[in-house]
Amino acid sequence: MHRRRHPVENSNHLKNIVDDAASITAVVKAAMSQTDNPRLKEILDALVDHGHAFLKQVKLTDEEFEKGLDFVRAVGLACNDKHNEVVLLADVLGLSTLVTLLNNSDASGRTPGALLGPFYRGDSPKYANGECIACANSPGSPLFVNGRVLNTKGEPVANAKVDVWQASPVGLYENQDSSQPDKNLRGHFYTDSEGRFTCKSVRPAGYPVPTDGPVGVLLESQNRHPFRPAHLHFVIIAEGYATLVSQVFADDSEHLHSDVVFGVNRRLVGTFERHDHGTGPRQEVDRPYYTLDYDFVLAEGTPTYPTPPIK
Amino acid sequence: MHRRRHPVENSNHLKNIVDDAASITAVVKAAMSQTDNPRLKEILDALVDHGHAFLKQVKLTDEEFEKGLDFVRAVGLACNDKHNEVVLLADVLGLSTLVTLLNNSDASGRTPGALLGPFYRGDSPKYANGECIACANSPGSPLFVNGRVLNTKGEPVANAKVDVWQASPVGLYENQDSSQPDKNLRGHFYTDSEGRFTCKSVRPAGYPVPTDGPVGVLLESQNRHPFRPAHLHFVIIAEGYATLVSQVFADDSEHLHSDVVFGVNRRLVGTFERHDHGTGPRQEVDRPYYTLDYDFVLAEGTPTYPTPPIK
Repeated sequence: MHRRRHPVENSNHLKNIVDDAASITAVVKAAMSQTDNPRLKEILDALVDHGHAFLKQVKLTDEEFEKGLDFVRAVGLACNDKHNEVVLLADVLGLSTLVTLLNNSDASGRTPGALLGPFYRGDSPKYANGECIACANSPGSPLFVNGRVLNTKGEPVANAKVDVWQASPVGLYENQDSSQPDKNLRGHFYTDSEGRFTCKSVRPAGYPVPTDGPVGVLLESQNRHPFRPAHLHFVIIAEGYATLVSQVFADDSEHLHSDVVFGVNRRLVGTFERHDHGTGPRQEVDRPYYTLDYDFVLAEGTPTYPTPPIK
Repeated sequence: MHRRRHPVENSNHLKNIVDDAASITAVVKAAMSQTDNPRLKEILDALVDHGHAFLKQVKLTDEEFEKGLDFVRAVGLACNDKHNEVVLLADVLGLSTLVTLLNNSDASGRTPGALLGPFYRGDSPKYANGECIACANSPGSPLFVNGRVLNTKGEPVANAKVDVWQASPVGLYENQDSSQPDKNLRGHFYTDSEGRFTCKSVRPAGYPVPTDGPVGVLLESQNRHPFRPAHLHFVIIAEGYATLVSQVFADDSEHLHSDVVFGVNRRLVGTFERHDHGTGPRQEVDRPYYTLDYDFVLAEGTPTYPTPPIK
């Protein structure tokens, strides 16, 4: 009655059977081989290869695996209509910036892309060149942005739509801060025939990413601060050019060397030049102020329109 | 005024700046280098290495990345008190079985581990050897399990607690199915001095994993069926031995070669031997019935007590 206790152990008729850690990856990929979309198959094959290699390399224990799955679950459950903790996790592991660089950065001379971020709104007010996007009596140091939009041949791009948004001098976007008017520190401009736009504002401050979720716990365990250096966001859209989504960082910002989401690129650091009041190009200004001169370079292509994470 | 438009582009004083896709991985790992727990650091370094290598290998587009993050978010948000979609995702990518094999399988001769699964309850009823864990008048074919628990020297392990649970002949666990009594098809036995236990039951059926969440969409896109082959779950706990969490699969089960969670191991396939009524070892049975003879082999170690995913 007990004659066959492991009856098929030595049989070869079992296909797609996982015998050990060495055989499982091929079995999983065989199971996924009927995927209709070849690109999806390529991506998932690579994900399985790297996911399995990761587990084998660190020989994750059952308990560690369970903790890891619990963490992912908590990250998902921390998402709501106004916050995406999954994106935040991808950001603090450098995944988001890596994808941006893979797709929006090359040797053509164009300005590298940077993250759109969670605070973009697609419907900013239109301003004429020279107008101010900060509300009246805004605190903080005045900032005068003198921008140019060029193509990779150095020629001006006229009539480019330049959408700019930024945090306030205390590091809050208007939709995080009930003390700011709606759409404060957001606006779009159009470049003139020389590719120039000019925008008045106030200096933004750096700010922390949200730390009240599981990603905050992760940063804490890594002894990392949660700050981004001060920056301005830009989306530049022009006929005949690939849309540029980027950020320009203040060269004197405290966390320039340790952006928690790894967005600082040498090319994206702008000189925020300080002027005493009564001196420099805006002698009429009654406080110390800053100027930022920055050239954006667009690659030829077809415009795309980023989807606002916040409606 | 426009004299310094990319002022720090050629400067070397910027540390930890991400210039391109080639430099980011080192910058992220530098940022994580102050992690207190060395094991956490090792795991996250490897995760970043493999995650970045994956993104570079497939050159994930911005749009694909966004879709991927949305998928992870949906997986997290599909979790609730009774269901863990994150675990399900790990299962269908072979990650869970790989971790089980890395930690619960070796050349010692012990029975390989398999997934605990989401249906384990820690408080099954105690039965005497030979008793039936199926309710009276249960549909399905009777099943007689003749088990032995041995150590790696082939010696019997007496007084081992053998916890068994299974789906019904229609493929539902009692806590998924209001037509079954509470704790139907669950029970624990103790081995005798020869290491034997005997359990009467009914043949389980295979069943699909839940497909109403994002993982179901993934399986559909891969043209994969969602079924697990028919199996019995076991947890075996004995003094002086590492706890065995495993499953035994029916050798004639429809999806034996394509378990959606990759749990089938050659060593874990048991012969479900069919007998006509009035024949074989249980001639008194009035219907066709099955016998399963199976030896479990425990490795020496310290018992652990699995946490029930469902209380």
